Amino acid sequence: MFLNNLSNLSLNQLIDAWPASPWVFAEVSSAESGPFVLIGVLLSLITVYLTSKLGGELSKRLDLPPVLGELVGGVVVGVSALHLIMFPENSAAVTDSVIAQVIQWMGNLDAEAAMHVFESQSEVISVLAELGVIVLLFEIGLESDLRELSKVGAQAAVVAVVGVVAPFTLGTVGLISIFHVPVIPAIFAGAALTATSIGITSKVLAELGHLKSKEGQIIVGAAVIDDVLGIIVLAVVASLAKTGEVDLLNVVYLIISASAFLLGAILLGKFFNTGFVAIADKLQTRGALLIPAFTFALVMSCLASAIHLEAILGAFAAGLVLDETDKRNELDQQVMPIADILVPIFFVTVGAKADLGVLNPMVAENRAGLIIAAFLMAVAVIGKVITGWAVFGQPGINRMAIGVGMIPRGEVGLVFAGIGSASGVLDRPLEAAIIMMVILTTFLAPPLLQMTLKETDVELPTEAALSATE
Amino acid sequence: MFLNNLSNLSLNQLIDAWPASPWVFAEVSSAESGPFVLIGVLLSLITVYLTSKLGGELSKRLDLPPVLGELVGGVVVGVSALHLIMFPENSAAVTDSVIAQVIQWMGNLDAEAAMHVFESQSEVISVLAELGVIVLLFEIGLESDLRELSKVGAQAAVVAVVGVVAPFTLGTVGLISIFHVPVIPAIFAGAALTATSIGITSKVLAELGHLKSKEGQIIVGAAVIDDVLGIIVLAVVASLAKTGEVDLLNVVYLIISASAFLLGAILLGKFFNTGFVAIADKLQTRGALLIPAFTFALVMSCLASAIHLEAILGAFAAGLVLDETDKRNELDQQVMPIADILVPIFFVTVGAKADLGVLNPMVAENRAGLIIAAFLMAVAVIGKVITGWAVFGQPGINRMAIGVGMIPRGEVGLVFAGIGSASGVLDRPLEAAIIMMVILTTFLAPPLLQMTLKETDVELPTEAALSATE
Repeated sequence: MFLNNLSNLSLNQLIDAWPASPWVFAEVSSAESGPFVLIGVLLSLITVYLTSKLGGELSKRLDLPPVLGELVGGVVVGVSALHLIMFPENSAAVTDSVIAQVIQWMGNLDAEAAMHVFESQSEVISVLAELGVIVLLFEIGLESDLRELSKVGAQAAVVAVVGVVAPFTLGTVGLISIFHVPVIPAIFAGAALTATSIGITSKVLAELGHLKSKEGQIIVGAAVIDDVLGIIVLAVVASLAKTGEVDLLNVVYLIISASAFLLGAILLGKFFNTGFVAIADKLQTRGALLIPAFTFALVMSCLASAIHLEAILGAFAAGLVLDETDKRNELDQQVMPIADILVPIFFVTVGAKADLGVLNPMVAENRAGLIIAAFLMAVAVIGKVITGWAVFGQPGINRMAIGVGMIPRGEVGLVFAGIGSASGVLDRPLEAAIIMMVILTTFLAPPLLQMTLKETDVELPTEAALSATE
Repeated sequence: MFLNNLSNLSLNQLIDAWPASPWVFAEVSSAESGPFVLIGVLLSLITVYLTSKLGGELSKRLDLPPVLGELVGGVVVGVSALHLIMFPENSAAVTDSVIAQVIQWMGNLDAEAAMHVFESQSEVISVLAELGVIVLLFEIGLESDLRELSKVGAQAAVVAVVGVVAPFTLGTVGLISIFHVPVIPAIFAGAALTATSIGITSKVLAELGHLKSKEGQIIVGAAVIDDVLGIIVLAVVASLAKTGEVDLLNVVYLIISASAFLLGAILLGKFFNTGFVAIADKLQTRGALLIPAFTFALVMSCLASAIHLEAILGAFAAGLVLDETDKRNELDQQVMPIADILVPIFFVTVGAKADLGVLNPMVAENRAGLIIAAFLMAVAVIGKVITGWAVFGQPGINRMAIGVGMIPRGEVGLVFAGIGSASGVLDRPLEAAIIMMVILTTFLAPPLLQMTLKETDVELPTEAALSATE
């Protein structure tokens, strides 16, 4: 927001100073604007990929999760700064989007045609971003392993449940009682505090060489359960947001249908998997494994939508089911490139849509948002750190490390912010506060985890040093 | 067309007989129709994948190229029959699309919202189909090998040039003089007769075990050159279609810019490749190889569009360039799943948009289209079969097999039909005639090639039989 005027000014000067369009067409009306929609989508995708790679790599170089860089990159190219990736919902005019203006100039489009191209191109990018979350959750489902959960067992389950209940309750009650936020947005923000990012957590643990330690196993196990709980919470909350009221019967119905859908999918999966493998083995054309699996994920996404749940829950369930087949490694390999090209569209888009201008402390009315962000941040850390002390029957375990390991929110927290913003439940300060919370937890967790785990390590290097001396 | 009334009738009865919508919403206006666009896209994609797999596998079982089945499947689910995959351009109303009607009923949408969802969902599927051709030509570029061409050398070049010039001249002149077709559509149809499908031809040769024979090498070499020539012809013709007149200077400019673009891309590619590999090696986040390569393909597609060429020419050039890097095998592996999910959208959509109703011989005015199809078919076969006799300095070679090997048109021919139809150059009978020609050449070539190559084989089984007797 605070960069709007600057970028608009220089853009208009640029366009005025440019030579007349070299294209041979007369002014183009909206009926003939078809090819320009493709060019608009191509320019948007190029921007998204350059942003995600620059942001991701920079983030990686700073020893932070790449997803953080993609998100921050999205903020830079979006409504908060460069105005490259724009959506009609937060900017009504073609003149707000640099890409739409370039296309209008390239094709010599009239105002109506330019608006049509801008709307169509944004619609396509939005749907591609939604397909991106669907593929992401399908992949998370494929990477999650129900059998691993049974090994870490009860400890992980307790950590997961405390890690969902504590931040949700603290966050929701705090927002309502301290900040007088209406009930539904408060529940939504509370829910956004629940889900630990299994991707970020397990990656950080692997980098620190602690994936196989007792603490590491409990963290990963809890993050997996937490992921499932978080998605059920998301489905419940998103449906609540749709119907507009807190209907206890509806909540119960949703919890039951979410659980039944997920459990039913897993149970039916045992039968389905035999059939699936048989079908995939019989197919002789390209995509023999991928197309049936991907179609299954889309069907489950559609089914989930049809019974009032979120599409991504269906994709996650499809992933969990297909994870049980013998084909899982082959499928993982084939889904990865698809996730590589679709998932960044989602993260960059979430960043691009987040108007960080509302957090500008220079504007008096924004200060409430900043205070909320500070409050969410405190709850996000405290609500997860206490989970370490819920672990029972494990004397001498590093409780702090377990709690800290649950801090990063990552993907699922952003899914909440994106859906909350798309459905209109979250106002801008609250949405921006949630994104700030996700950015900060993701940002804080790796160095904190490194610090807490080093305490355990203190003896290890000493032993190693001793054995080297011997 | 002849099935329209039937399917509309039964659909309307179905919807009238259905219970009231179970969704809790009041009638939804177009501002809130966002999530339904996603559901519409998901339902369309599910239909596309089921169609492409059923059609492809059936085709494969009948020993025909799978792409033929995808195309015919598209015809079945499209405007000619089931009305599942529909586009506003050939059907103005929501009531013409089964999926749009299902969504209107599911979401209890008002007429305006339903039309908005129908238009948005069709726009998304259209762009996904265009991304499908871009990925397809990127993949064909990656599979083409400039070094292989130098081995088969002059023979292949002569076969390729004759195989482009002969059908183009015969087709264009014949359509203008015999059928009094206007010049631009005649040139477009003539151009659609030029490009041999390298995919289908090389696959058929491999299946018959003749890929490494002298005939096989000349066919594959010629098909590669032919592919490049066909794409230049496509770029020329599509640009001609856009500007609306045959401007000789413009043709020369286009031939020069198409050649310069392609050759420049390849020459610059040598420098670029070193940089590309260095960049890909330095990247540490997911998609380190795929995202730079894919972004390069999109940038080249955009550049090609910007200098009045087709986007697909850029994607093909990007593929040719990246084929020269050490990373080509790894890249091939990663592009394959993306092609698997995007390319079928293109083929099924081309089939779905083809209104075969215009070829119904019961309707008097359609007979011209059928006669044109018969003429195109004759030109398509004769124009390629004669190329075998253009081979020089190879006594005893199976000239008929080389000519027959060049017959299948496949992908590139369909690209012509799709672009011609989208740009409005081709009227329906001519578009349908081209699609019929592509279907029939693709359908005829494998058994014909099997027949002509068996003549050469006659001695081989005998020798094998003899050695088995010894």
